[in-house]
Formats: sequence, structure tokens, C-alpha cells
Amino acid sequence: MSIPLPVDYWFEYPVRVQPHHTDYAGVVWHGTYITWLEEARVEALRLTGLDYAQLVSLGCELPVIDLAIQYRRPLKMGMTGLVKARMQPMQGVRIIWDYEICTSDGQLCVTAQVTLVTLDWQTGKIMRRLPPELKQVLDPKQALDLIDNPQADS
Amino acid sequence: MSIPLPVDYWFEYPVRVQPHHTDYAGVVWHGTYITWLEEARVEALRLTGLDYAQLVSLGCELPVIDLAIQYRRPLKMGMTGLVKARMQPMQGVRIIWDYEICTSDGQLCVTAQVTLVTLDWQTGKIMRRLPPELKQVLDPKQALDLIDNPQADS
Amino acid sequence: MSIPLPVDYWFEYPVRVQPHHTDYAGVVWHGTYITWLEEARVEALRLTGLDYAQLVSLGCELPVIDLAIQYRRPLKMGMTGLVKARMQPMQGVRIIWDYEICTSDGQLCVTAQVTLVTLDWQTGKIMRRLPPELKQVLDPKQALDLIDNPQADS
Amino acid sequence: MSIPLPVDYWFEYPVRVQPHHTDYAGVVWHGTYITWLEEARVEALRLTGLDYAQLVSLGCELPVIDLAIQYRRPLKMGMTGLVKARMQPMQGVRIIWDYEICTSDGQLCVTAQVTLVTLDWQTGKIMRRLPPELKQVLDPKQALDLIDNPQADS
Repeated sequence: MSIPLPVDYWFEYPVRVQPHHTDYAGVVWHGTYITWLEEARVEALRLTGLDYAQLVSLGCELPVIDLAIQYRRPLKMGMTGLVKARMQPMQGVRIIWDYEICTSDGQLCVTAQVTLVTLDWQTGKIMRRLPPELKQVLDPKQALDLIDNPQADS
Repeated sequence: MSIPLPVDYWFEYPVRVQPHHTDYAGVVWHGTYITWLEEARVEALRLTGLDYAQLVSLGCELPVIDLAIQYRRPLKMGMTGLVKARMQPMQGVRIIWDYEICTSDGQLCVTAQVTLVTLDWQTGKIMRRLPPELKQVLDPKQALDLIDNPQADS
Repeated sequence: MSIPLPVDYWFEYPVRVQPHHTDYAGVVWHGTYITWLEEARVEALRLTGLDYAQLVSLGCELPVIDLAIQYRRPLKMGMTGLVKARMQPMQGVRIIWDYEICTSDGQLCVTAQVTLVTLDWQTGKIMRRLPPELKQVLDPKQALDLIDNPQADS
Repeated sequence: MSIPLPVDYWFEYPVRVQPHHTDYAGVVWHGTYITWLEEARVEALRLTGLDYAQLVSLGCELPVIDLAIQYRRPLKMGMTGLVKARMQPMQGVRIIWDYEICTSDGQLCVTAQVTLVTLDWQTGKIMRRLPPELKQVLDPKQALDLIDNPQADS
């Protein structure tokens, strides 16, 4: 069973800067943050009961179609950071995630927004009807129903 | 001597998709494109006579402060692509690069825009007066002067 | 205070295969394992009280001088794995780590051996006298003393 | 048509150190070299007429089963390097590549040895009979025949 992410829920994913994340400037290389955005997204979905690898094996892909990232302050070698990820209520076929990455003492380092679509692996086309496993997690109506009326899912 | 990039000049940087660029879907992983945007930028500057490593050794950094990328069509294992990069005329302290990444037969795969600032490594502050090596390349007035009046640089 | 890693102690570092770790074959790209070897090493040292970033700030580097890795079975998209890392008793200036990476149900996927030296950042030379922070962790005699006679370190 | 790599032929693959290749120490991160070993191998095979992506589409994989790398001297930010790759005459099912990576003025930085096998994608088993496209390139007898008797391949 999958449980939708509550509306406005920020999933938190801790990271630590390892040598391979850094560049010559001693800070996290700007592209490294993209790996953390992905990891936080995959792990937030896992929390709902949705396993990304399983989704792929069902023939459903979630490719990124748009990514915007703003760098305010660098994370440095050895620092810990917190990736906060929130899925917007789904509208049409787009799945939009908002992100904030902070230092361990709460200073904002990075903000980002990532847009994905659900793709049918075989046809290469955007899925307009989601697989039930995914619909349960992504559909905001069902999520709201669940909050109002928890037994709706049983 | 450094030569400014002509206004509206698209620098072209060829790439080939290697196994390490791909993900389980058989296409280029979406974060890999960030490495190519950086490589194209560094190589375009080299064309003007500006060596990025030398800039760093002068105490000048060019951190990315904003990156936006749109994925339209994936590059796949073994394909070749062309990264086209163009620097916008500099306004204030921001250096903005526009990008297009196409397949070898010209199909548009990715568009992107990357914004950088010049940072003084020691103080960690944005440089409001550019080092002469960089000013010569980035300052659009000087570039236009050069085009109108080639001996201006001598 | 730093506490030496007990002789023959296997530090365990769990990993999960994310999309960015994989290649077109749907398995972990062979170079990705190198990032996990590094992360496990850094985290094992942290357990002893030795912070790698702090070591670097003291002017001490631990570059890899030799790495050998054997691939027996691939980790695949979405799988979890366990990186097991053990530091050999230090002999001369070489620090040797042995590794095993297993699936969550204990199947051996990868074995590896990584050799590092301590380098003085300023001179670029191998340190023949270790900084005390490092000596406490790496010196097997001191570690054995501690095991035999725990108050030796006080 | 594929042409075997001549015995003892060193294929040369130039690289340039970009910011994303480096780590906090200002040198190439030790795992980055693995990407260059792969690229050089793929490009050397391309020279023989063997396209790696095509091989994959034929259901043949070339997974790395063993990799050993020795780091003698680091490549630094902005430097160019030369990856030299040579395939050993094939013995049994193992394909062994020797590598040297040098600075542009010939100083040896890295040596490595990478062992691969040919794998049947569908069965997951090692191929004991190579596909003809690959056999032509890898089989040392055929290569020697070609050198002794160039029309053998026609």
C-alpha cells in the first residue's frame, strides 16, 4: 500500500560533503547538488511506499524535464547539510518538487525546483493515466480525501 | 592577450555519450549535462585566451549562482552531441551563458542558462572591478570597440 | 580525543543504489564504487574521532596511491548494499584499507584494497612523523596498548 | 568491417582537467581517472570500427571485472593529460587493457590495468564464442594473420 505525501510536507534528507563531492575551490561542485536532489526525491517517494526501481520495472519512468537551481552559499568539505524536498499538488501531467538545502545550523545554501513527467517506457510517451501505485501517491484529491477521511484508503 | 568573444557568437563543443554518462534508462543522466555546460564554458573562454586555471591562480573565481535547464529529448548511449554556448553581453556583475545541446543531426535536446559572478577568492566577495584579463574578455563595450576599431586593443 | 579503530574491526557503511549511480546496463557503473570506498573510509575515521576535513585544515592530506578492485556481481538500481571497510595495522608510511561490498542478503559483490599515504600539503612530501591526531588512530602499537591497558590514553 | 588493433599499439586519448574533475585539493579526484580509462577504451575500439553502443544493442556487454590503478603524480586543474591505452592479446575470455596517463610533457602520473569479459546480456553468462564483430577485433590470431597476410580479412 502506498500513502500519499501530506500536502505541504517537507521531506528531510541529510547529506555530508565527502571529498568526491568537492571541487578545486574546496566547496561542493555545483553539479553535485543534482545528485542530492534526486536522492531526496527517491527517498521521499520510498516513504510513501513507492519504490522507484519497482516503478521502473512496471515500465514507468519519471524523467526530469526542467530543473532550476539557485546557489546562495556553498557547502564546504566535511560539512553536513539538509536537503528539504516537497512535492507540489499534481496539476496535469507535471510533478513539481521544491527544494531547499541548508547547513546543519539552518543557513540556506541552495533552492531548487525540479519538474518531472511520467513516461511510458515502451511507447516513450507521457502517461496521461498514471499507474495506480503512482496515482495513489501523486493525486492530491486522493491525498486530501485521506486526510479528511482516513479510512478511504482501506 | 585576450580577445573578447564576438557578440552573438555561439561556441560549439562536441561531446560523445560514454557509458559513465548514462543511467539505467540507457540515456544521459540528467545531471551529466551540467559537466558539459561547464566544459563548453571553460573551452569558450580558452578560445579568447583566458585560461580558467590561471584565473583561479590570480585569486578570481567564477561560481555559478543560477542554473536553469530544460530537457526536451535525451541523448543516448554512443550518440554524439553538440553543445552550443553563447555569453550574453555583461550587465553589472552577472555573466550569463545561453546553451543549446543538439544531436549530431541538429535535433534540439537541451536548452540551458547559467549565471556566474566573479568572486574574489580571498575576501569571498563579488568583484566589482574585474581583473584586466577578464575585463578584456567580458566587457561588451570593449568588445564592440574592438570590432569597430580593431587597433583599440594595441 | 581520538580512539583507534580496533584491530580487525570491520566498519559497515550502508549504501543504496540511486539512478545517478547506474549506467545504461541498469547496474551500478563500475567507477561509482570508488565514491563508496571513500565515503566508508572517511566515516570509519570519523568514528575514531578523526574528522577528515579537520585533518586537511591541519595541512595533512591522505591521497590514494594504489587502488585495486574486483567486481564479482553487480548491485542494481534500487538495491541496498553494505560496504565493509577495515584498516590494516599501519606498516611504514602506507595506510591500507580492505573492503568488501555485499548485497543486503550478504552476497559478495565487490572486493577492494586501497592504499593511502599521509602527505604534507605545503611541502608535497610524505609525512614520516604523523600529526598526533592521526598517530593516535593509525598507530597499531598505541591501539594494542589501549586494548591491553585502557588508561594508557588518559 | 572491423580492423584489429595492432599488437603493442598504444592508443592515445587526450584529456583536459576541468573543474568538475577536481577535488578540494585542486587535483583530479582519484576516481575521475576511471572515466578516462573507460573513454579511452571505447574510443580505441571505435578506431577499429567497433562501436560500443552497437555491441550493446547486439546483446553483448563488456563489464569490468578487475581494475588496478597506481597514482604517482596528480594532474591538476587546467592541465592536459594523455591517456595511453593498449589491449593485450586476448587469452581465454579475459580482455586486458594496460594504461599510462602522462602530463603533456611526458611525466607519468598514473598506470592502470583493466580486465573485462564479454557477457551475454540475456543470459548474464560469459560468452565463450564472441560475436564476429568482436572476434575480428579481439582475436590475436586473426590480428597476426592480418599483419602477415593482409588479404586474409577480405
